[in-house]
Amino acid sequence: MAQKYTIPKGTRDFSPEEMARRNYIFQTIQSIFKKYGYLPIETPAMENLSTLMGKYGEEGDRLLFKILNSGDFLKNLDTEDIENKNLGKVTTAIAEKGLRYDLTVPFARYVVQHLNEITFPFKRYQIQPVWRADRPQKGRYREFYQCDVDVIGSHSLLNEVELIRIIDSIFRELNINVVIKLNNRKILTGIVETINAPERLTDITTAMDKIDKIGVEKVYEELRGKGLDEDTINMLEPVMNLSGDNTSRLNCLKELIGATDTGSQGLEEMQTILGLTKQLDLKAEIKLDQVLARGLNYYTGTIIEVIAKDVSIGSICGGGRYDNLTGVFGLPDVSGVGISFGADRIYDVMNELTVFPEEALNSTDVMLVNFGDKEAAYSLGILEQIQQTGIKAELYPDAAKMKKQMKYADQKKVGYVLLIGEEEMNTGIYTLKNMKTGEQTKGNLEEILTILKP
Amino acid sequence: MAQKYTIPKGTRDFSPEEMARRNYIFQTIQSIFKKYGYLPIETPAMENLSTLMGKYGEEGDRLLFKILNSGDFLKNLDTEDIENKNLGKVTTAIAEKGLRYDLTVPFARYVVQHLNEITFPFKRYQIQPVWRADRPQKGRYREFYQCDVDVIGSHSLLNEVELIRIIDSIFRELNINVVIKLNNRKILTGIVETINAPERLTDITTAMDKIDKIGVEKVYEELRGKGLDEDTINMLEPVMNLSGDNTSRLNCLKELIGATDTGSQGLEEMQTILGLTKQLDLKAEIKLDQVLARGLNYYTGTIIEVIAKDVSIGSICGGGRYDNLTGVFGLPDVSGVGISFGADRIYDVMNELTVFPEEALNSTDVMLVNFGDKEAAYSLGILEQIQQTGIKAELYPDAAKMKKQMKYADQKKVGYVLLIGEEEMNTGIYTLKNMKTGEQTKGNLEEILTILKP
Repeated sequence: MAQKYTIPKGTRDFSPEEMARRNYIFQTIQSIFKKYGYLPIETPAMENLSTLMGKYGEEGDRLLFKILNSGDFLKNLDTEDIENKNLGKVTTAIAEKGLRYDLTVPFARYVVQHLNEITFPFKRYQIQPVWRADRPQKGRYREFYQCDVDVIGSHSLLNEVELIRIIDSIFRELNINVVIKLNNRKILTGIVETINAPERLTDITTAMDKIDKIGVEKVYEELRGKGLDEDTINMLEPVMNLSGDNTSRLNCLKELIGATDTGSQGLEEMQTILGLTKQLDLKAEIKLDQVLARGLNYYTGTIIEVIAKDVSIGSICGGGRYDNLTGVFGLPDVSGVGISFGADRIYDVMNELTVFPEEALNSTDVMLVNFGDKEAAYSLGILEQIQQTGIKAELYPDAAKMKKQMKYADQKKVGYVLLIGEEEMNTGIYTLKNMKTGEQTKGNLEEILTILKP
Repeated sequence: MAQKYTIPKGTRDFSPEEMARRNYIFQTIQSIFKKYGYLPIETPAMENLSTLMGKYGEEGDRLLFKILNSGDFLKNLDTEDIENKNLGKVTTAIAEKGLRYDLTVPFARYVVQHLNEITFPFKRYQIQPVWRADRPQKGRYREFYQCDVDVIGSHSLLNEVELIRIIDSIFRELNINVVIKLNNRKILTGIVETINAPERLTDITTAMDKIDKIGVEKVYEELRGKGLDEDTINMLEPVMNLSGDNTSRLNCLKELIGATDTGSQGLEEMQTILGLTKQLDLKAEIKLDQVLARGLNYYTGTIIEVIAKDVSIGSICGGGRYDNLTGVFGLPDVSGVGISFGADRIYDVMNELTVFPEEALNSTDVMLVNFGDKEAAYSLGILEQIQQTGIKAELYPDAAKMKKQMKYADQKKVGYVLLIGEEEMNTGIYTLKNMKTGEQTKGNLEEILTILKP
């Protein structure tokens, strides 16, 4: 008996069936990135820990997978640090490299390192796995793919509009109805300035962002817990309770926070973006969401989040504008805007909605049955001619029982089976069986090809 | 000034230009794997060290990248092992996982773990990076891609023929002239049995395999160094000096080693494969090479190696049949045959031969110049219509100076530039500039699309 061999927790194998679905998602995303003029880059799985550490907060540092130095990894180790259980110092002594935690920090490092080779504005996409030593749970893995698309070196809001169009194109193609929520860091700043609590930006926006999940009363409770007084909380009420379409929200916000410089600027940006998208043929619903915050400290302008309308699973895409991507690497003032697509969640959504197109899941178009050495040798020539037309085809490798060969074709979801026995060899008239309908057709190679090639 | 940030030695960033070339190779390989009915799987980058260790020899164990356990990685550590510098025991205590070293061992583990879900014969391909803590040098990296294709669960030689056809199709498509060298482990066994030195199989075949590199005299020297007597070496001479075409080599070998059961069986297999490939429309040269050994201990039947004819760089693809892939994981007698394409070397060969097709390197088909807010808003609608036809298009995001926009288009190797200024907006007649020839054409959108869409 085979022993039990498994893979590390939080990681996954992908079977051919899963790969067909996953590749459909990746290919759709990639082809749309390309259609909008974005170019791919790739960075190594391993980065120096000096590049990664300190970029994701203390929790992030802990969740980095660290790679043991090769060779004599003990040589820089101070045994006192072991005795004191100083994990940080021991780690530094024995591990110089780590697995990338996201695609953003490696991208920032890439831009700084290759500054002289890059033409700005730099429109790049990157589809690669990332690793996090998170506690594995449903929908959360230790290895997962990110699909990032960013444009850096341009302040134009046309970039935001382009990303909205990309989101729309991708989810239209994938057959998922979505809401694209938009906000702006400057609107959030305007809100806290208006209620005279600018120093509480993070506390207030983090709490407000939860309104959809926990409801307005719990948000107030959280704010009270954080020491905000009732007056301030009362001043937040009109912002929290905004309703109506984007235009009326925008108008209300102008009245509420338009007196602050930053708020006014944020609203102007929002108005430009909403105006430009209005004339476009978008399928997605665009919604101004004045409480949307996401990873706030990171974003400096537009904030974007995408929600599937018909499946409740959280955000399936998100991003925004950041004005200091490469600052941590010593290159200030590089503005960029980008979004990231969550392939795993999109996969779950598409499975739940059963919207994977059947063509994407087909494997081989036609399988030639193997009737024996002589027939197989003859079939090889036919196989070659079939494949030369671009049709995916295979010859069953063994002269196994017909039942076994048909079972293989069935389980592999092969579209057609072609039978070339001795009689067929002599007449040049072959039998083609449609595996879905069971229908059988006879014909010469040319006629068979007409059926196989849609 | 930006600080110097680099990546770990032996790893690489890939720029858009390099990615275009690399993707062309991967897509060609993948589309041909699919055309022959192979299906993709993927396995995690990290495997348990219990899966990886002991599979690649002592040197391989050393070259595995090990991942430090998360959390309190010191908890299982015996400080005595540290004091004794027992690297092996310390590693076991602090690292449970490692990065995959190749795709073969993870595939074997996959087959054993998912045995009940797999339909045999299982035709799978896998294109993923692997990691080795090798000393980096020209053409040798610590992170590189392997492209493996295997069929397991079938003894039929039709599988070997199929792999030869795949090799031929891929290198034909990539425009590389190749020689496909074939041998058989059983022929090698027949040789050493014939000269009465069966126990010296590894020594003899390892030495013989080097004949192309070091010449026949040095091979003899090496054999003498390994303690073979002159009589035995003399008996090897006819095998070493075989010449002529495949048929005459095969006939000579029959006379030389046909008396041994194993040798005779190997020659029969070779004859079948050569016979079946002869009737096919192959571009590659097939060459029976009776000294070809490769990773001998691994292969049990056919051995395959592919060499580029016009570039001297070593093998660019290789593989063979193995009868015990999953044995180390407790599942004996699973026969398979497979080959692996070396994407990095293929890349180097194609660069040297300058055979990358220009279409593969194009980025955006057309860039719309940005003349200002009003023109850009108008252009957005035109952009949308252009992209809807499948053409890759972008609007320059800022109303920058014309010179700057044209420089961007030029450096990004954009095919055409479309100019829509105020006059063009009013007349609906746009100006299209071919960036290669400099030629300018005027026309309405429909006429422009005809030019853009080849």
